[in-house]
Amino acid sequence: MPYRAAVDDFDFLLGQVIDFSALSETTRFADATQDMSRAILSEAGKMCDAVLAPLQRAGDLHPARLDNGVVRTSPGYAEGFKAIADGGWIGMSADPDYGGMGLPMSLTYAVNEMMSGACLSLQLAPLMSQGQIEALEHHASDAIKTLYLPKLISGEWTGTMNLTEPQAGSDVGALSSKAVDNGDGSYAISGQKIYISWGDNDFAANICHLVLARLPDAPAGTKGISLFLVPKFVPDDNGDPGTPNTLSVVSLEHKMGLHGSPTAVMQYDGATGWLVGPEHGGMAAMFTMMNNARLGVGGQGIGVAEAACQQAMAYAMERKQGRAGVGGTGTIAEHADVRRMLMTMKADTYAARAIALSCAHAIDMGNATGAADWTARAAFLTPIAKAFGSDVGIEVAQTGLQVHGGMGVIEETGAAQYSRDVRVTAIYEGTNGIQAMDLVGRKMMDGGEAANRLLDEIEAEIEGARVHFPNMADAVWQSCETLREATDWMVAQSDMNARFAGAVPYLRAFARVLGGHLHLLSAKADKGGPREKLARFYIQRLLPEHQGLLAHAQAGDKDLFALTTEELIA
Amino acid sequence: MPYRAAVDDFDFLLGQVIDFSALSETTRFADATQDMSRAILSEAGKMCDAVLAPLQRAGDLHPARLDNGVVRTSPGYAEGFKAIADGGWIGMSADPDYGGMGLPMSLTYAVNEMMSGACLSLQLAPLMSQGQIEALEHHASDAIKTLYLPKLISGEWTGTMNLTEPQAGSDVGALSSKAVDNGDGSYAISGQKIYISWGDNDFAANICHLVLARLPDAPAGTKGISLFLVPKFVPDDNGDPGTPNTLSVVSLEHKMGLHGSPTAVMQYDGATGWLVGPEHGGMAAMFTMMNNARLGVGGQGIGVAEAACQQAMAYAMERKQGRAGVGGTGTIAEHADVRRMLMTMKADTYAARAIALSCAHAIDMGNATGAADWTARAAFLTPIAKAFGSDVGIEVAQTGLQVHGGMGVIEETGAAQYSRDVRVTAIYEGTNGIQAMDLVGRKMMDGGEAANRLLDEIEAEIEGARVHFPNMADAVWQSCETLREATDWMVAQSDMNARFAGAVPYLRAFARVLGGHLHLLSAKADKGGPREKLARFYIQRLLPEHQGLLAHAQAGDKDLFALTTEELIA
Repeated sequence: MPYRAAVDDFDFLLGQVIDFSALSETTRFADATQDMSRAILSEAGKMCDAVLAPLQRAGDLHPARLDNGVVRTSPGYAEGFKAIADGGWIGMSADPDYGGMGLPMSLTYAVNEMMSGACLSLQLAPLMSQGQIEALEHHASDAIKTLYLPKLISGEWTGTMNLTEPQAGSDVGALSSKAVDNGDGSYAISGQKIYISWGDNDFAANICHLVLARLPDAPAGTKGISLFLVPKFVPDDNGDPGTPNTLSVVSLEHKMGLHGSPTAVMQYDGATGWLVGPEHGGMAAMFTMMNNARLGVGGQGIGVAEAACQQAMAYAMERKQGRAGVGGTGTIAEHADVRRMLMTMKADTYAARAIALSCAHAIDMGNATGAADWTARAAFLTPIAKAFGSDVGIEVAQTGLQVHGGMGVIEETGAAQYSRDVRVTAIYEGTNGIQAMDLVGRKMMDGGEAANRLLDEIEAEIEGARVHFPNMADAVWQSCETLREATDWMVAQSDMNARFAGAVPYLRAFARVLGGHLHLLSAKADKGGPREKLARFYIQRLLPEHQGLLAHAQAGDKDLFALTTEELIA
Repeated sequence: MPYRAAVDDFDFLLGQVIDFSALSETTRFADATQDMSRAILSEAGKMCDAVLAPLQRAGDLHPARLDNGVVRTSPGYAEGFKAIADGGWIGMSADPDYGGMGLPMSLTYAVNEMMSGACLSLQLAPLMSQGQIEALEHHASDAIKTLYLPKLISGEWTGTMNLTEPQAGSDVGALSSKAVDNGDGSYAISGQKIYISWGDNDFAANICHLVLARLPDAPAGTKGISLFLVPKFVPDDNGDPGTPNTLSVVSLEHKMGLHGSPTAVMQYDGATGWLVGPEHGGMAAMFTMMNNARLGVGGQGIGVAEAACQQAMAYAMERKQGRAGVGGTGTIAEHADVRRMLMTMKADTYAARAIALSCAHAIDMGNATGAADWTARAAFLTPIAKAFGSDVGIEVAQTGLQVHGGMGVIEETGAAQYSRDVRVTAIYEGTNGIQAMDLVGRKMMDGGEAANRLLDEIEAEIEGARVHFPNMADAVWQSCETLREATDWMVAQSDMNARFAGAVPYLRAFARVLGGHLHLLSAKADKGGPREKLARFYIQRLLPEHQGLLAHAQAGDKDLFALTTEELIA
């Protein structure tokens, strides 16, 4: 059974659960009707199924390689990227003045997720361009926008993000790349950057690097970082790729997965670049780009979860083994334990997708209305969507592998590849630990206001479902109350280490409760239908996980540091 | 920091927690004193650290390969196997009459686990021989024992297990390989077997295959399966390898990990073999072998967990990033979230090891005393040790990878290899789902007697710890009571599907509670010391997981099958 993009799920979620229609009541997204959304999702889904999914194995078997300084991409990837570009999918949410479609992030999220499930390593290329487009739209000069945006949006050129250096990973403020003013409006950028996804390719006419570096006498830490646009070829007077810039791909990493995506070490030797945003103001621009990239990475996990789930379902319904189970076909899908795995995969993928779409919706409402509440909601949901989406991707891929039994670890099956490819999503764009610290730290600097407003809304919606599903509503309501207590506990900790010590289990529990709420809303919109049945499974079996997580979350940090270093390594 | 076998942990557990001394009070294991145990563990540990651990990367980089029908093993593996054989580690628990050391399984478990952490793919070779040795000791004729056991024990020859066929995996009764009586005491074996670990190698003079096959007119299913010993070379009159048998390695699998271990498709074309055990009695012999192999596979997971934990500790204590955390060295080990990961890895590895050693101890006590209670205890703990041990191996390896951040997915780091190598341990020797079904099915056919006797003993021991640690004791006692309720629920289900629907979360919860109990005993033996501190972490943060698991475990099977096949794949 080949991959099929989950068009119906998106259509249902946008139409019945996420209140997509609220968007079409805004001026900015007045055209974003459900009919339009359905047409777009369907068109994108066809491309994912027919063009991208067949490239999944090729990237793994024939990794991107470095050939005399030039990256050679996997077979078919150039054609796949062209299909993405020609469909207009790179610039879906980009400014129409520069060739974008100006569509809501909700739809861009959906298409990005569908592409991830089809071929994650290729999908990462347009995702990087999207981040760059957004950063340039918000922070670049008109001259840069006019020259670069149309080419990035059309896919003629591609974009990358250059943050990390060997000594500066999660602590980006420790970076030491240098920028010197050339006196002609350009700067000379020098330094080495690592983990540059799609740092080079052989299908774009130019590759545009957004590079963080320090100007002379810049303040220490993140306050002294500036952002520069550094193209592979310096554009000539016509805006065409001109002189090769003084930058190079030093090497490509040997990764456990995502072999089709070239992860480069980049060297800049006085390379010509242009400032994006103010001097020393690079972090603000990077955060613009990274916030939406975080949602995108969550979607990468969820897309892989969808694909792994579909593959496991197909295998389980084909594979005969043991005495006939419930239903009598004799396939392993009718064995209770296998069915538990399949249902868990499906219910968690759905929950994570609904959370990610809620986040995208909040971004859209914030952009359309400018309301601070929506912006805060988006900011609060972003680390949850990123961490839970990628964790679900990893877990569902692992469970899918397990469904295959011995075949699961045989590479030809493809199940192992999903588990290898998706693993990095819990690490890049800020590790999931960093996401959780962001949630209980920065996102609770409001004293828990955004969290509690969300919980208030959820509880009000639960009350509306109680008449239909008293037991399910009660279970979700109880989980909400337990989460509220833990939230109060978090906010009350003035010692940030006490918060951080429980950040990861807290984030996970928050996602569990959100998932329960969104499953309940789905059940309400599909009474007696399959989404009600799936909600019952989730709420009865998976939601209770929040109890142990929230006990863990409120344990404080004292016992964490009770062991001395010597005792720890003993 | 190179790998160091966890000699001290084993010494402490055997001396203070598991009651190893009870063994030396039996006739059979009168020599098994703690001093002797310490000397053995220390000697084995040295070999693991110095000889085996350096082979870990070589197996991954230079996989075993098939070269004109002959398997060529990874560089250094022949020497590594020789070191294992020369140390006497293959036949540690084997019968001294045939060259074994006759030591308790507790010590064999420990050495096997230490070897797994050093180099899992090589360790699988002696583990397979050990299983064969045990099966032959219990079921083979004297002639076979006299000829084969000394050579298997010395490592001159190696052994394999041939169960699976393409259509017969978890359902071994579906196998169709044939055996025909040659009329001279031998049989002609024909058929194809898959997933044969170490199906061939280039360092043993002969390779002995234990093959399940059907005699003509055998009953259907598992009642019609016989076991045959089929050597690669038919021994001549001197017992030396003689004529090549009519068997061959068809191919080796491309696996996601464990590249150093050749996983073969084996073809038997009327190959000469000898019956082991009675006609149609093959399953009993296989179960003898598989039960202890299951404990061994649990130990493989725990060994990898140990190694991954050590590597992550070393990395975290070296890597500087971000503002100085608690302690002021500036390494990431002092960040609360990283410390949470390190402590979780350490506490879970310890819990899983203590459970596995409890199982090994029960096996030894059963063998030494013949008491049915000990045998039942061993049978009950075996699926828990296998499933929890391998799951902990997978989880700890994944967490170790996460501690490394971006470096974690770079293959040169080695963290990814642990996660790839260990993955199959949740699948082979019976998937972890099969283990859980065994626990709530076969192992509860006594009406829950073995389970409740274990819970009674645990609660009595908790009472003994209450005066020292009232809060910890209370938490473990409460978890025991919750587990007891769930156990009663399981036993009360006459519909096995209702049990199977919750089998995996039930097994996991049982392990969580056992882990709490064993951590508590460790705390009691190390008051104020590091093991008390580790116990506090486990009991406060990890033990609460049992709540959600046991809610899941008692949900029954109705909602599992609520979705139709069409709704499931929609």
